This record gives sequence, C-alpha cells and structure tokens, in this order.
Amino acid sequence: MSHTQNNLSLLTDLYQLTMSYGYWKKGRAEEEAVFHLFFRKNPFGGAYAIAAGLETVVDLLENFRFEEEDLDYLRSLKGNNGDPLFEEDFLTYLKEMEFSCEIMALPEGSLCFPHEPILRVKGPIIQCQILETPLLNIINFQTLIATKASRICYAAEGDRVLEFGLRRAQGIDGGLSASRAAYIGGVHASSNVLAGKNYGIPCKGTHAHSWVMSFDSEEDSFEAYADAMPNNCVFLVDTYDTIEGVKKAIEAGKRLRDRGFEMNGIRLDSGDLAQLSIESRKLLDEAGFEKASIVASNDLDEYRISELKAKGAKIDVWGVGTRLVTAYDQAALGGVYKLAALKKADGSWDYKIKLSEQIIKVSNPGMMRIKRLYEGGKVKGDVLYNEEWGWETRAFTSLEGERIEMEGLERDEILVKVFENGKRLYVLPDIHASRSNALNQLAQLPEELKLLKPEKKYAVGLSDDLAKLKQKLIDRAKKQG
Amino acid sequence: MSHTQNNLSLLTDLYQLTMSYGYWKKGRAEEEAVFHLFFRKNPFGGAYAIAAGLETVVDLLENFRFEEEDLDYLRSLKGNNGDPLFEEDFLTYLKEMEFSCEIMALPEGSLCFPHEPILRVKGPIIQCQILETPLLNIINFQTLIATKASRICYAAEGDRVLEFGLRRAQGIDGGLSASRAAYIGGVHASSNVLAGKNYGIPCKGTHAHSWVMSFDSEEDSFEAYADAMPNNCVFLVDTYDTIEGVKKAIEAGKRLRDRGFEMNGIRLDSGDLAQLSIESRKLLDEAGFEKASIVASNDLDEYRISELKAKGAKIDVWGVGTRLVTAYDQAALGGVYKLAALKKADGSWDYKIKLSEQIIKVSNPGMMRIKRLYEGGKVKGDVLYNEEWGWETRAFTSLEGERIEMEGLERDEILVKVFENGKRLYVLPDIHASRSNALNQLAQLPEELKLLKPEKKYAVGLSDDLAKLKQKLIDRAKKQG
Repeated sequence: MSHTQNNLSLLTDLYQLTMSYGYWKKGRAEEEAVFHLFFRKNPFGGAYAIAAGLETVVDLLENFRFEEEDLDYLRSLKGNNGDPLFEEDFLTYLKEMEFSCEIMALPEGSLCFPHEPILRVKGPIIQCQILETPLLNIINFQTLIATKASRICYAAEGDRVLEFGLRRAQGIDGGLSASRAAYIGGVHASSNVLAGKNYGIPCKGTHAHSWVMSFDSEEDSFEAYADAMPNNCVFLVDTYDTIEGVKKAIEAGKRLRDRGFEMNGIRLDSGDLAQLSIESRKLLDEAGFEKASIVASNDLDEYRISELKAKGAKIDVWGVGTRLVTAYDQAALGGVYKLAALKKADGSWDYKIKLSEQIIKVSNPGMMRIKRLYEGGKVKGDVLYNEEWGWETRAFTSLEGERIEMEGLERDEILVKVFENGKRLYVLPDIHASRSNALNQLAQLPEELKLLKPEKKYAVGLSDDLAKLKQKLIDRAKKQG
Repeated sequence: MSHTQNNLSLLTDLYQLTMSYGYWKKGRAEEEAVFHLFFRKNPFGGAYAIAAGLETVVDLLENFRFEEEDLDYLRSLKGNNGDPLFEEDFLTYLKEMEFSCEIMALPEGSLCFPHEPILRVKGPIIQCQILETPLLNIINFQTLIATKASRICYAAEGDRVLEFGLRRAQGIDGGLSASRAAYIGGVHASSNVLAGKNYGIPCKGTHAHSWVMSFDSEEDSFEAYADAMPNNCVFLVDTYDTIEGVKKAIEAGKRLRDRGFEMNGIRLDSGDLAQLSIESRKLLDEAGFEKASIVASNDLDEYRISELKAKGAKIDVWGVGTRLVTAYDQAALGGVYKLAALKKADGSWDYKIKLSEQIIKVSNPGMMRIKRLYEGGKVKGDVLYNEEWGWETRAFTSLEGERIEMEGLERDEILVKVFENGKRLYVLPDIHASRSNALNQLAQLPEELKLLKPEKKYAVGLSDDLAKLKQKLIDRAKKQG
C-alpha cells in the first residue's frame, strides 16, 4: 500500500460520513450551514498565532470527489447486525456530489487570535461535515508550526534560522508541511530538498558527522569536502574536539581562499554552544575569517536560543529541527470546528451555539466576519460581527471584558473569500508573499504581545449585537438541557 | 502545488546530497558502508518500544529513483559564488542509480530496545547516506506511535481502544501513518476512513455534537440518528446535560429495540468521566441495556486512563485522539542513524564509532546482528554481535553493567533480511499479523517492564568481542582528536 495518496476524499472521520448519511436520510443533506474553524487558546503560552495551511486546503477542495474505489470501501462497511452501514442511493449521492461551499479565510501569514475564524465554511451541511476533519488537520498543524517558527525567529533577533527537522518529523507530510509552514512563519531556509522543490523554499546543507568519520582524519574530510564543493562549505567541527576542529576548518578555509573561494562558516552541534561559539568567533576573526558564519544546532528552540543570546553566544545562524517541526512543547493546536448557523425553511438563519461548563468553550453564533482595528500602525483589537446584520458597531467589549471605543481607529476586513459556490475566486499568493505577509503583520503587533511569555492579551470581542445574540442562545440552550 | 507526492527521492536533507556529491567526486560513491538506525532511550519513560514503519520503508525503497524533474531541481541549486552546486555528471549518476542495498530489519510489531538496530543498511555509501533522512522520518514516527498505543492499551487493561486523532494530527500523513502505527501497537479501530481503506484497519464512528445541535432537541437528534442508522448507534449524551442525555439515549434505545435493533452504547466527552460513567452504567443496566457500551473520550492517554480505572470508572471503550497520534508528551523519538563500518580497498572492514562526551551517545561499531534470549517464555536480554565474526558468545555484559550467562537460554535471531542487492526477499505480513506480533511479543515481556514508569531496564549488551572492539576504537578516536 502506497503511503502517498492523490485522492483524499476519505481523509475524514467515519462519523462525518455516518452523520452525512443521517442528514441525507432526513432529506437535510443540502440544508445550508455555517461552521467556523478556530482555536480557543494561543499555542505555546504566546499572545498570537500565524495562520497557515490555506494553500493546502485549496488543493484539497479543488480535488475533492469520491472515486469508485472510495465508494467500494464505504460499501464494505457493516453495522452491528452485519448489514451495510450505507444505502446504495447515498453512495450514488456522494459520487455525484460536487463541492459547492463558500469559504472565507484568513490569508496565510495572517496574525490570528483565539475565537476568531481562520476558516468559515458555508454550504450544504453534508459537505461542511465531511470537510471538518481534513480542514482541522491541515490548518491546526500548519498554523501551529508557523507560530512556532515565528517565535523562534523572534528569539533569534533577526539572525538566520534554518529548519532541519525532517528526520524527526511526524511522518512524511509532517515533514513537508512543517517545512512549508515554518518558512511562512519566518525561517530562512530548510534542509528538506523535497520541500525546496515543491514549495520553492530555499534549501541549505553541507555535511554531517558521518562524512568526517568516513575519512582517516578530520583534516582529510574537510579537505575532501572543500575539493568537491568549494562554494558551499560549512565545516562541522565537533566530531572529535570542537576547538581543534575549528582550527582545522580555518586551515581548510585558507586553502579554499588560495583557490579563490570563501568558506561559508563552521557548525557547532554539541557542547556549551555559548562558550564554544565565543572561542570559535575569536579564532575565526584572528585568522581573517570575520565573515564566516557560526551555525549552531542541537535541540534548539526559542527558549534555548534566548538563553544562548543572553550568554553572549556568537552564533549567526540557528539550525532548528525536532522542536520546531513537531512543536515539541505543544504538539497540537486545539483548533475546533463549530456549527454556528443553519438556514431555516423560510430562508432565515437559525443561530447555534455549543454550551459547555467552561465559559471559554461556549462557541460563538452567527455568520462571522472580522474587523481588525489599528492605531498608530499597530493592531489594536479584532471585532467579530455577524455578516447578515452588517457593520454598525462603535465600540465592543473584548472577551476579557475590556471596552474598546473604535472612533478614529483604522479598520480592515480580514477574512477573504476563497471559494464561492465551490469555485475559487482567490488567487493564492506564492509562499514568499505569505512569508512577507507574516513578517509585515508581526511588525504591526505591539512588542509586549511578541514576548515568549507575554502578560497581556490581544483584544478580541463580539460586536454588541452578536454578544446579545450569544447570551440569548445560552439562556435558551440552558432551558433545553 | 499538490500536497500529495508519488516520487519521494528528494525527501531527504540537502546535506545527504552534498555529501553524496563529495563521495562521488572522490571516487568513493560505491564504497560499501554499514549504517544502523537505532534510538538511545525508550520513549515516554517506558522500558520498551514497538518497532513500526517497515512496510512504509519498503514502499519507499521499491519506488526509489530520481526523476528528470528532481534532477532539474538539483540542477537549479547554486553555491555561494552563484555556480551550480552539482556537476552534470553527478546528476547523470543519480539518474542511473538503482537501489542496491541490503536491508536487515526488525519486523513490525517487534519489541525493540535502546542501542539495537531497528534497521541495518549495507551498501554503497552514497545510497546509505541519501536514505538516512527518509528512513529516520518513517521509523522514528511510526515506532513512537506504536509504542504510545501499546502503553495506552496496557493502561486500558484489555478494554477496546479507538484512535480518533486525525483532526489534530501533524499533517495528512501524520494522521495516516499514526492510524497505521497505532493499530500495530494494539488499538482496535480508527475513525480515520482513509486509513481504514488504505491499511485495512477497522473503522468506527457515529455522531458528534454538531448533529445534536442541528436539531431542535436532543431527543429529535437521537431519534433521527436511530432512524437513519439503526445498526450503528452510539449516542453522544453530553451536548446539554449528560445524565439527561443518558436518559434520552435509553429512550431511543428502547424504541430501537422495538424495531429489532440494539444500540451499541453511549459516549461521554466531557465532565467527570469516572462519576458520569458510574451513573450512566447504573441507568443503562436498570433499563435493561447491560450490553450497551460506555465510550469515553476527552484528552485521554495512558495516565488519564489509569486514573479513571483507579477511580472505578465504568468505561468499556476508550476513544483516544490527540495525545496518541502526536505522542503529545514526547512528540519525537530520538532515533539516529550511524556509520558503523566501511569496506577497505582490500575487502576487509574498517569499523567506525562516533565519539561523544556522553558515553551513552558513543555509537556501536560492527555489522550488527541481534540475538534475543528467552527464559521461561519471557524475554531475558538482547545481545548485539558482529555478523562478520559470527556467534560464539556464552555470556555478555549489558550496557547497564549486568553480566548475563546464556547457558540454557533459548535464543532467536531477530533481524530479518528485507532486501538483498536491492531486491526484496521479505514477504510483508499484513497489518493484522503485525498487530498480532506486537501483542504476542508484549506477552513475552516481564510484567515489571510493561509498567508505565518501570524501575527496571531490559538487558541489552554487546558480545564480548564487540565490546572489546568498541573500546579499542574509542581509544583510537581519542588519540585522533
């Protein structure tokens, strides 16, 4: 069985299909619904996230169809009495189904915050339901990794960051889409060649310990590498003794220079990176290699980079692997996908919420749009409002209870329409534009909200109308319980 | 750009290709090397791991070739002076290269332990090197998840465990290969329909909160579900008030029974699962639904399941998502791939180690094979020995320093030959056989080593010959440094 896959229509939870069957049986398959995909809490204890994954979503939706072999599989599923789970007519319905939803989304690289839709899906309930799982899968992971990358780049204070996590990533696509999202989030290059080819990400790499070990001496190994690839030399210096390794790299660098080439630098992969980088810098500078970079790697993340910076480490390039591509300290974004409205027979909308004992977990109703407010070039707050009612709000209360007057604030509509009636309207920016978007948007975030462990929160709130509707629905649902 | 991919030959780190180029330039491309893929520490603080991923590896290797578009990409890469990184003749070499390695491996579902090869790759150094990254990617992740699943099933004490993590998994393949590995590790079914289709894993699911919310009342929603799919009813009861929900599920179950069907059970997804399951069990039993299962979900893992068991929870089926498929508490297995031998011009082997300040990180030399020892039907220890020297050991010292006499112990050769000269010899077992292998092997592990936080370690050691060689190489390498 191939681990690669062109047709992803079955990439969903079975209950999406059993519910779809239920809607179809009840004649409700085409009932129009609105779902929002959002998270409730910023990852990693930060104050923001960077949206990513939309291009992958578009690719999924543009190729969404049930093939005969998918239907054969569904036909084979049985209930507890041995009868088929699905009627043949339902399978025919799936076969003929064409994606026809409207999708609104935050462009990739956008700042995003708790409770606001990264995606809004509006269309036949059966389609909304089947798409829940793959949309969550794609957006949850790529948003998580883009955010992690953004934090790591923040800690690196403008230094170059290389992602090289493929070997420890969670599966093949866990590697590929992590490389993609990390680049959007701000890293400068990846070691992942296929990600380089597929996504146009800059690709970097020189040699490993095994190269050094395969020669009789470290000198021979550097010399051989410099011979083979004089225009791409970062010598890994810690196979035996780091400082001795640096000295040998300098000798190799001198011989390179004699041949008209310049070494890129050295890499440290173990030991006390702060101390070793300071000593290495001194040796390199004394030998006339002021421009040679010191690359460091070894279980790095935003915290470790901050510590090393605080210790005065002379590191120019940060190689980050496992802890970036698996988001090691928080391996999942808790994104959810909640029903927010259903169209009634008379054409009006019935707004929905999901109750919970925890107030933070009560979903928001409506057909949401987002206005982002700016003051002095910085983002100030996001207001969620109901598209159906339009925009008339002059002030709003954030979910934290802060009242924010909007007079004089610039405002921007931040959800874009990606699909209408299943047809794509949105032109996907290339990945470099999405990365620039992330960097530009981050520049609009107040400094205190960029901190790794911020004390303040960004203001996200409901328009007064939407807040009233939510309270009304909570009261109604409680009675129903 | 499609997120699906048939040709994975570029799924590697760039430095594997730059080193390959270096070997090729030096005329060393076909030099025969031996690499071992192993981890140094059991994941999750446990005493064992379950090997998984071999079928995915076989699929990768059987389809391994550089296509014209891969070479075009490599041709486009430039060094620091703007010249191409790779010469045209090297790209031709890659194009004509055919996979020709020997691969030895632990079959999927095998118990495996620190320092022993899950894979041993022997062949042209250039091929060994290019394959390092994808082999690590596949084996690291699937072994991690199979092990996590095994621990969760251990905590569930024989109860059924369902995996439904796709929505929070790390990318598309992070979901698919997690479902695959979790099944090998012992879970009973997955919600992931595509994994069901691709791998033949049992697939389960009924309905979500959104189904309930889409109806005017919870009663109506249960009734409608039972109407549509009477042979697959697990009612999710916590949308409004759990105990009221259970009562409504019982009413729906009675009407189902009148129609000649039996409900499968109910699902609890929030609140105090121990207390709610006890109350629900009582209500179900009193109403004559003794066989109805109680399914529970909500951030479960092996620790939470153990706690709930200790509190007397009446849960029959455990639904486990995020914390299983992302291995949330340890999101990566630190598997590595180390050069262990290189063939010299005279045909003899030059054994290699990688030094490290930490003794645990010093790699083991040789061309390793593994003998597993048994006593009274239980595994007793694994001895790593050098294939070239054969097997003459009567006792060995574990890496923890324990001396183990082998007289009277049964022994088994546990690495199997999967490829020889690039041709597959090994017949892949189906996934159910691999799962059975995991369950059978686990039954051979002493109870004290199955604990979630064991105090003892399993004995893994080097044969005396190999231990001597290692010491000799350490001494030599220290002089070299």
